[in-house]
Amino acid sequence: MSGTDGALSHGGPARVNSDVALARAVVDRCRRLAACSEEPGATTRTFLSPPMREVHALVTDWMRQAHMDVTVDAAGNLRGVYAGDRAGSPHLYIGSHLDTVPHAGAFDGILGVMLGVAVVERLEGRRLPFAIEVVGFSEEEGVRFGTPFIGSRALAGTLDADLLDRVDAGGVSIREAIRVYGLDADRIDDARATHGALGFLEIHIEQGPVLDQSNLPLAVVETIVGQTRLDVTFEGAANHAGTTPMAGRRDALTGAAEWVVAVEREARNLAGLVATTGVIRALPGATNVIAASCRCSLDVRHASDAQRHAAVDRFTAAARAIASARSLTAHWALALDQPAVAMDGALIERLDRAVAEVGVPSRHMASGAGHDAMVMASCMPAAMLFVRSPGGISHHPDEAVEIDDVAVAIGVSGALLDDLSRQP
Amino acid sequence: MSGTDGALSHGGPARVNSDVALARAVVDRCRRLAACSEEPGATTRTFLSPPMREVHALVTDWMRQAHMDVTVDAAGNLRGVYAGDRAGSPHLYIGSHLDTVPHAGAFDGILGVMLGVAVVERLEGRRLPFAIEVVGFSEEEGVRFGTPFIGSRALAGTLDADLLDRVDAGGVSIREAIRVYGLDADRIDDARATHGALGFLEIHIEQGPVLDQSNLPLAVVETIVGQTRLDVTFEGAANHAGTTPMAGRRDALTGAAEWVVAVEREARNLAGLVATTGVIRALPGATNVIAASCRCSLDVRHASDAQRHAAVDRFTAAARAIASARSLTAHWALALDQPAVAMDGALIERLDRAVAEVGVPSRHMASGAGHDAMVMASCMPAAMLFVRSPGGISHHPDEAVEIDDVAVAIGVSGALLDDLSRQP
Repeated sequence: MSGTDGALSHGGPARVNSDVALARAVVDRCRRLAACSEEPGATTRTFLSPPMREVHALVTDWMRQAHMDVTVDAAGNLRGVYAGDRAGSPHLYIGSHLDTVPHAGAFDGILGVMLGVAVVERLEGRRLPFAIEVVGFSEEEGVRFGTPFIGSRALAGTLDADLLDRVDAGGVSIREAIRVYGLDADRIDDARATHGALGFLEIHIEQGPVLDQSNLPLAVVETIVGQTRLDVTFEGAANHAGTTPMAGRRDALTGAAEWVVAVEREARNLAGLVATTGVIRALPGATNVIAASCRCSLDVRHASDAQRHAAVDRFTAAARAIASARSLTAHWALALDQPAVAMDGALIERLDRAVAEVGVPSRHMASGAGHDAMVMASCMPAAMLFVRSPGGISHHPDEAVEIDDVAVAIGVSGALLDDLSRQP
Repeated sequence: MSGTDGALSHGGPARVNSDVALARAVVDRCRRLAACSEEPGATTRTFLSPPMREVHALVTDWMRQAHMDVTVDAAGNLRGVYAGDRAGSPHLYIGSHLDTVPHAGAFDGILGVMLGVAVVERLEGRRLPFAIEVVGFSEEEGVRFGTPFIGSRALAGTLDADLLDRVDAGGVSIREAIRVYGLDADRIDDARATHGALGFLEIHIEQGPVLDQSNLPLAVVETIVGQTRLDVTFEGAANHAGTTPMAGRRDALTGAAEWVVAVEREARNLAGLVATTGVIRALPGATNVIAASCRCSLDVRHASDAQRHAAVDRFTAAARAIASARSLTAHWALALDQPAVAMDGALIERLDRAVAEVGVPSRHMASGAGHDAMVMASCMPAAMLFVRSPGGISHHPDEAVEIDDVAVAIGVSGALLDDLSRQP
């Protein structure tokens, strides 16, 4: 926790009122962009889909009104540069993504882009010893091509050329989607963030219940958690549900169920650990047949890679022990092992100072979800601010933000700019 | 248990040798009929499918050689009558079914028909004060039309006329299948077992491990267990697997898993109770999303209807308690509530005497699976003998029988005929 109460002290009442006015404009713009959709009545906007043109047109207008130079790079990222006080100033990147999941809310990603524009507007023409480049990444969710972070990987220079040949459900490749949008995939290297970079700031809704439950407007992200995904299968013997007494069974489904419960119990014992089985399937899958096999997904996340790996070891040991006690076998395949990504320590300190200056209560936390900041951290210092998600709701039309929380995020960002201006 | 050791004493060594020879013929015939299949290399034979013609032709030959009059009734049942010692003798029905599950073994159903023929052959022309009618039921498994017992229901007079309009996967109705086979569905009423009936005897493989594990050749069935099927659904809230701490979750899948384990534990505590979840499905069913709902099948069986209903009440109470403790809801739909069917007490006593006379160890047991005897019990005294299933294997090409067990079943059936002849 930093700050001692919820009052907004930074810059006095006039500044607070104008931050609230900016916050209202940010929320209005997010809602306006939510209407740019592939589906009437819902918000669905995948990589360079037709409604993305509308989004680019609207955001370009708002950026230009804020005295920014706007371009779209070869990966479809919208980039608005607010020049620094001299030529060749280094860039501070601020942004998030413009694409959405199917039937999305209005704030996941978009909020961070609109806040970037608002932070520039808040300067009212004042120039800083660095440029601010607001980026609306073209793709983060991985919906259209089953691969996420196309936009930020282009800036970080980690977008494999091979990846451009991946196709969507309609057989259209990433390369072709870029061409149809009027861009040139062969120039993707030009999208790299080559300006001397002060760093990258992403402001994003939390998408979880932590801030809402602790009644805090925002958090400084310390780490984006690492993730292990396993495919776990228990194997027993199919048999007749009526003629096989309980004692003689080698039931793969009850074995899997015991393990799912054991994983949950174990995960509750370590702070910050989450472990989830979202998929379960028994075969042959008939009402009157004891299951011969049962396959489960397992998603394990923790801010510490060592803790995560130790937890995965405990989970697989439990699978082995439960299988053995039931005369089953258990085996598993590693589907993902993605290390945790720490946010930049110096930027975290600056954000802490900015939060303290604004005088709002906040906390540090880990991000349980992946974000563009994770990719950007590979090429520059990166930091994230989380804004409270009322009810913890995200990836849903009911996704929301509080105006006052958005105003606080604007105030903290402004204080960060001041801090960076004083000691770049 | 009845009998004191495993020696075959009934009728002396000559009779035992001839029963073993008959048993070999029975097993040979079962294996011969297993080749009559809709699929090369496997045994799959559904209601009145083309290979059933071959089965009818072969079995008709064997029946005629045993001096039986053979007909096929309008429901496709093959019926061979071995006349009694006077005109108008009552009938003792012996039989089982000629259809199979897909990729079946050679003995499920067929064994009981071949044993009926062998029991007549064993008389070597001797006439009894009753006729023996061996029935090869056309349909018991319910594979082709999703409804079982078409053959025995025609004999019992419980085959709804409406049922004849049910269609298979190819859109062919039962009525049409009967017509194509050269029979007349309008004459199905003629298939009823209208002769004064002494009773119905079905000899069937156990299809479970009980006799094999207790090293017994056969059992007298007391009851065919009743069955409840429920569709149980747990409902919680979908949420992000990464951003939702363990403590705040309303995970429908872990709730369902806890319940599956609780049902298994509870079922192990009551002798003769079996409870099985063979189907489980979580929605939305994504690796990185906490399940909003999880649906499970539940199949509960016990020889006592009261015990079964009490167990189902305990299972649903457990679902309610687990859901409540986890802030989930649980609801269920009754898919089947089929009462237990007791075998005829007087026939059981006669079988016990026959077993004692043959001098083999045996036991009483409940049948966990449904059989034609369950349907026939609605119109005449019915009884069943179970023959040991090595390894408890059934509905599988590895399904087997021991020659000596089959010989014992023939001996016991012969002793039953003698007993019925002495006191009909």
